[in-house]
Amino acid sequence: MLVLNAVDIQKVYTMKDAIEADKQALRMYTQGLTEVPLRINFDAKKGQNLFMPAYIKELDVSGIKIVSVFPDNPKIGKNSVPAQVLLLDPETGEVCALIDGTYLTQLRTGAVQGAGTDLLARKDAANAVLIGSGGQAASQLEAMLTVRPLKKVAIFDIDLERAKTFASNMSTKFAKFGVNIYASTNLDEDIAQADIITSVTTSKAATFKGELVKKGAHVNGVGSYTPEMHEIPESVVKRAAIRVLDTKDGVFAEAGDIIDPINHGLVSKADFFELGDLVIDPKKCRQSDEQVTLFKTVGSAVLDVVVGYDIYLKAKKMGIGTEI
Amino acid sequence: MLVLNAVDIQKVYTMKDAIEADKQALRMYTQGLTEVPLRINFDAKKGQNLFMPAYIKELDVSGIKIVSVFPDNPKIGKNSVPAQVLLLDPETGEVCALIDGTYLTQLRTGAVQGAGTDLLARKDAANAVLIGSGGQAASQLEAMLTVRPLKKVAIFDIDLERAKTFASNMSTKFAKFGVNIYASTNLDEDIAQADIITSVTTSKAATFKGELVKKGAHVNGVGSYTPEMHEIPESVVKRAAIRVLDTKDGVFAEAGDIIDPINHGLVSKADFFELGDLVIDPKKCRQSDEQVTLFKTVGSAVLDVVVGYDIYLKAKKMGIGTEI
Repeated sequence: MLVLNAVDIQKVYTMKDAIEADKQALRMYTQGLTEVPLRINFDAKKGQNLFMPAYIKELDVSGIKIVSVFPDNPKIGKNSVPAQVLLLDPETGEVCALIDGTYLTQLRTGAVQGAGTDLLARKDAANAVLIGSGGQAASQLEAMLTVRPLKKVAIFDIDLERAKTFASNMSTKFAKFGVNIYASTNLDEDIAQADIITSVTTSKAATFKGELVKKGAHVNGVGSYTPEMHEIPESVVKRAAIRVLDTKDGVFAEAGDIIDPINHGLVSKADFFELGDLVIDPKKCRQSDEQVTLFKTVGSAVLDVVVGYDIYLKAKKMGIGTEI
Repeated sequence: MLVLNAVDIQKVYTMKDAIEADKQALRMYTQGLTEVPLRINFDAKKGQNLFMPAYIKELDVSGIKIVSVFPDNPKIGKNSVPAQVLLLDPETGEVCALIDGTYLTQLRTGAVQGAGTDLLARKDAANAVLIGSGGQAASQLEAMLTVRPLKKVAIFDIDLERAKTFASNMSTKFAKFGVNIYASTNLDEDIAQADIITSVTTSKAATFKGELVKKGAHVNGVGSYTPEMHEIPESVVKRAAIRVLDTKDGVFAEAGDIIDPINHGLVSKADFFELGDLVIDPKKCRQSDEQVTLFKTVGSAVLDVVVGYDIYLKAKKMGIGTEI
């Protein structure tokens, strides 16, 4: 069994790799080449334990993400969402990999937005806004930078100091991209200029004004993952010319962003593609520089298993990780 | 995360410990203090990948057994049923233990029979028969030896040479019990003398003659785990004064041993206890030395998680295992 921590993964795997793997994962999902049972959820005393298995027929690989949501963990210096991903060897059925699921989740969640942005944003996109600067924000930023040659990215957070700290750290971390990363002090103005807007919050109300979104902009909804959470303005969902979801089953069941406008009669389920549809048929991607496009993701164990297996194969080939 | 292999487990944990843990596990199950979703089964190209999670409310611990059934594995020198058990820390939600699930399964499966035998067999039981000498047989033998001071154990296998080899190996391994372990060359005679009969095969037909079972005998059905498998004679199921299952849901869904006699009208579902019922109320155990008693087990993830957690706590206390 190969044990891979975050540092190991960084040695063998790039955001670009993860974006390609996510595209293929969602293509297989849309083609019906994956099995993803409902996740199993136990209510423990201090939080939730979630078990998310998946089988990928095309790769003949099974795996599972085991993740807990323990809100009090930070008080004892622990991550509030600890996770591990395990994979089964197609040849022997043995557990062959134990992968840091917290880092893998950040990576694949950034990457799925990167896939959506790559397939939908204008090629000449230059200005982006990132709303939310929490645990998922760094990989969301990296994904946008990876797929478009951005000139500036405004970071907005309801806590301005947090946005400033994040922008400063990211300016160093992503210096190679030669991009101006700054804390937004005027969100309306930044939104009005944005070619790409990514919201990654757990907000129950829209995090920006839909009417300010300019023609040709691409909007990513990454944060909300329950029917009560709702960060994308309904006007954007209505106005978007192309609306894309990672998985219809997941988003229609879990994301208030999309459930609410459907319930309000602004759009219907038939108005959405899956990202896999766009990978299979690129003609479904953006057709003009004027269209507003929308991508919403809630995640899937398919992403964990496909990206995890890709990492495992690369690490094994390069001799990275710890065998136990 | 503490990694525990078979040798580590043997250093900290006895069959007696496992029998006690299994009794408590099934008590909690019967009391409704556990959550056990249907196991998830993926059909991979070379076999099956099974995911069996459980949550134990009383202990506030979640865990999962990940097990594959890959029949061709022995051809490449691998176990055909490789397994791992993972546990989540109740305090942090992190995966805290990764335990050799193959050995743990043997241990908890032997132990559950030991629990049934302890609660049901005559106290003065001296003669036993073990039918089947495959991968689960050693722990089945150890469990019988642990709960009753047996004088002799006849080992029967359709392959007599295999029975002889097994009996010889076990005579050495369990020398401390001072018991005569021998390969049976006359099963009928051994059955007629047996106080305890344990069948651990995947046979589709009864492995012994029910009419030869003597008064006061206790019979364990351990092997069959599909509706097609059926190793216990229907006459024994009908004749038994006390019929006990590890879990009703599991046995009624999976074990031909019990499904068939119910379908044939010999017994009804109301004629069975769960082992937990006997732990809660010992008056439900054997009431006379004349009664024939029956215990049937198909296993449950509850056993894996409760026994696994008990092992983990003991190993941690004793500083055994490998931290990764």
